[in-house]
Amino acid sequence: MTGPVVVRRATAEDVPAIVAMLADDELGARRESPGDLGPYLRAFEAIDAADHELLAVAERDGAVVGTLQLTVLRGLSRGGASRAQIEAVRVASSTRGQGLGERLVRWAVEEARARGCAIVQFTSDKSRVDAHRFYRRLGFAQSHEGFKLELS
Amino acid sequence: MTGPVVVRRATAEDVPAIVAMLADDELGARRESPGDLGPYLRAFEAIDAADHELLAVAERDGAVVGTLQLTVLRGLSRGGASRAQIEAVRVASSTRGQGLGERLVRWAVEEARARGCAIVQFTSDKSRVDAHRFYRRLGFAQSHEGFKLELS
Repeated sequence: MTGPVVVRRATAEDVPAIVAMLADDELGARRESPGDLGPYLRAFEAIDAADHELLAVAERDGAVVGTLQLTVLRGLSRGGASRAQIEAVRVASSTRGQGLGERLVRWAVEEARARGCAIVQFTSDKSRVDAHRFYRRLGFAQSHEGFKLELS
Repeated sequence: MTGPVVVRRATAEDVPAIVAMLADDELGARRESPGDLGPYLRAFEAIDAADHELLAVAERDGAVVGTLQLTVLRGLSRGGASRAQIEAVRVASSTRGQGLGERLVRWAVEEARARGCAIVQFTSDKSRVDAHRFYRRLGFAQSHEGFKLELS
């Protein structure tokens, strides 16, 4: 049996668990260096200090089992509307397939609504086909192409 | 003959011209209300006051002929990297096909680089096929699916 899931704002103590989840991923394994937490902790401090950014974790039975980040972007378009951008959605590999991703994304949508955002948006690598089905089921329109340029 | 293009930070005086460009667009025409500038001016003030947000215009011969917005998002992923999100790229219909969009996006990439961002990213409606070719030519990878949920 497992206990209830709580989604909450992340603390500095959650950073090692979050970085472990970011690294434990087909794409993330090439991009993360969990051996040195310094850069991650510095980034956490900046996120934590910013009103428009919110790093969240899902916790169950005292363990961090999921994470996502929400950023509120202001804008002129759509009548000066704000939009919420979701980044870095991850669920611990040991707890996948249990609805935690859905729980996290639904939480982010409600948080975006509470903050007065008109849109919630995110991009997902074209290779994550299973995740796309899941996002469409949550009501998201797969309406855009996502472009990225890595700066060296 | 036309004069040189200057890309610069927008001021409150530019807001009417920016809103006119947002509305003069197949998708934007349904979403904007340029008759009441109040909400746009309030959004401009919030953007202008935020260090992480930058609204830019392209100006030529004293006229505003293009706009885009850049937002810097902090994050834990990719070793605590920041990313720059581009939104609301528009070029005045009278000056399309003259490379202004490329000028704006290149400017945004350099601004993102100057701000230490590891990635520049944006989404574009799947119907804007011509624009996608243009973004790929600028070096962007069309690697992601973009999901949006409108909140009522």
